[in-house]
Amino acid sequence: MSEAVVLACDWGTTNLRAWTLDAGGGVVQDRDFALGVSKLAPGEAERRFHDEVRPAFGAEGLPAILCGMIGSNLGWTVAPYADCPAGLEELAAALKVVEPGVKIVPGIRGPGITGGVDVMRGEETQLMGWLAQNPERRRGRQLVCHPGTHAKWMLVEDGRLVRFVTAMTGELFAVLSQHSVLKSDAPPTDEAAFAEGLAAAGDGDGLAARLFTARARVAGQGKPMESTPSYLSGLLVGADVASAPRLLGCEAAAVTLLGDNALCALYRRAFDARGIASETFDGEAAAVAGLFALHQIGAA
Amino acid sequence: MSEAVVLACDWGTTNLRAWTLDAGGGVVQDRDFALGVSKLAPGEAERRFHDEVRPAFGAEGLPAILCGMIGSNLGWTVAPYADCPAGLEELAAALKVVEPGVKIVPGIRGPGITGGVDVMRGEETQLMGWLAQNPERRRGRQLVCHPGTHAKWMLVEDGRLVRFVTAMTGELFAVLSQHSVLKSDAPPTDEAAFAEGLAAAGDGDGLAARLFTARARVAGQGKPMESTPSYLSGLLVGADVASAPRLLGCEAAAVTLLGDNALCALYRRAFDARGIASETFDGEAAAVAGLFALHQIGAA
Repeated sequence: MSEAVVLACDWGTTNLRAWTLDAGGGVVQDRDFALGVSKLAPGEAERRFHDEVRPAFGAEGLPAILCGMIGSNLGWTVAPYADCPAGLEELAAALKVVEPGVKIVPGIRGPGITGGVDVMRGEETQLMGWLAQNPERRRGRQLVCHPGTHAKWMLVEDGRLVRFVTAMTGELFAVLSQHSVLKSDAPPTDEAAFAEGLAAAGDGDGLAARLFTARARVAGQGKPMESTPSYLSGLLVGADVASAPRLLGCEAAAVTLLGDNALCALYRRAFDARGIASETFDGEAAAVAGLFALHQIGAA
Repeated sequence: MSEAVVLACDWGTTNLRAWTLDAGGGVVQDRDFALGVSKLAPGEAERRFHDEVRPAFGAEGLPAILCGMIGSNLGWTVAPYADCPAGLEELAAALKVVEPGVKIVPGIRGPGITGGVDVMRGEETQLMGWLAQNPERRRGRQLVCHPGTHAKWMLVEDGRLVRFVTAMTGELFAVLSQHSVLKSDAPPTDEAAFAEGLAAAGDGDGLAARLFTARARVAGQGKPMESTPSYLSGLLVGADVASAPRLLGCEAAAVTLLGDNALCALYRRAFDARGIASETFDGEAAAVAGLFALHQIGAA
């Protein structure tokens, strides 16, 4: 086993995933902790980090770098947002030192689609890792989609995030599946219903009305209730893919998918249906690469 | 007190509202019952109607007419949908006799925006009542908006409903306010935040992304969490008003609002902001008028 040089943590709302990394950025050990910041009392993050996370790796002496909601007002301390445009260097320069040897990656804030702002915490680290993995990616213009509870659509120019838009796609699926007239316990695994939902997304306009088609197809056409989650998933993913690039002012011929493989596969189907080329990269590997790159640049 | 000639019921998902009406359609008595069909076991509606609703009015011998979800598979018996185009005559001809002297108004089914169908149950009776209240309304083309959990946008030509679109506007507000990252107990009474949400609705495109602006304005701009429900309400109503007429292929210069007065007032602000004239009519009075007109035509 190679020697660990840094403790890296992706510390989010519902979970904490941690790795020790060697001098080449390779994973030495990894562990999950049920310590999402939504479950922590004020002041608890720091204590649990010292009492549980460090000892679990025998990593008491290592420098540590943390990203995600741990840098929000729910976490350890607030790491103020870096502003767009931001690349590896800007983020590394904005790392928040919370105690000697422990740094938190700031989130990023950018111009919003309605004149306000948009924000992210955690996804920026995956994006930076993806950029760090291959210098080619830091040339020209790239559209990167990170699907999830709050899907991020990120426009990168010459290695810097210039603007992005967040869509509540995953959260809409969750709350509608659990709490609305579209409620169902059936798994969203009906491929034909997913494709039907993709088609019903159209150009994405009028989403509140398109959502009711998930009800009308059952009440008025006798489609099985069990197909509702798959239809709803296709409708929401399809509407996201139809609308987000337009909102970002970037009708792309090719998109990079970065994140959870199962979610990326759903988006890939939506891109395929629209004739948009896509390539998928693993979000966890990108998070590790991003934390390692920011640690290295920040320590230089 | 004038003599009652019919027992009229608007029997919905969460509540049952009932009136006895005199020979001119005037209300003799009215009562509410906590007997929404979502709370009833199979077969229970018929029993509760005979054991509680009729006796409460001393109306055992009167003919009765019922509308709403009581005609769905959750209710007393299924009253099959009437198809668009449908006016007072078509609906009266399709009344479902469930037992001697008791009739249920069918819902209406029309072509859907995504190639399927759209459906309503209950709103058609308010629409028919509004049409019955004034013969002028049965001439030419009218766009009628019924705000609510499932907002109905109805296009009427020469007194018949030709097509409609349903938007899950009210239900989105409810599930997002109660179960999402936008959750808040604050009342939606902040007028400035409502206006901010109306403006953020833009042309209504990309609703899943516009919804996240409700989060970003708090996390990234320091707006107070307590203003979130008002902002969300303005955003959803604004997006509905921006999108629904377009989906219906009917960019209207004037709209009729029919329904709950508080909800209609919110929509009125959205129409005002867009320079669209609107006139509001009370939904309960329209329901009474619709039930009475259908009773009269159906008995003729």
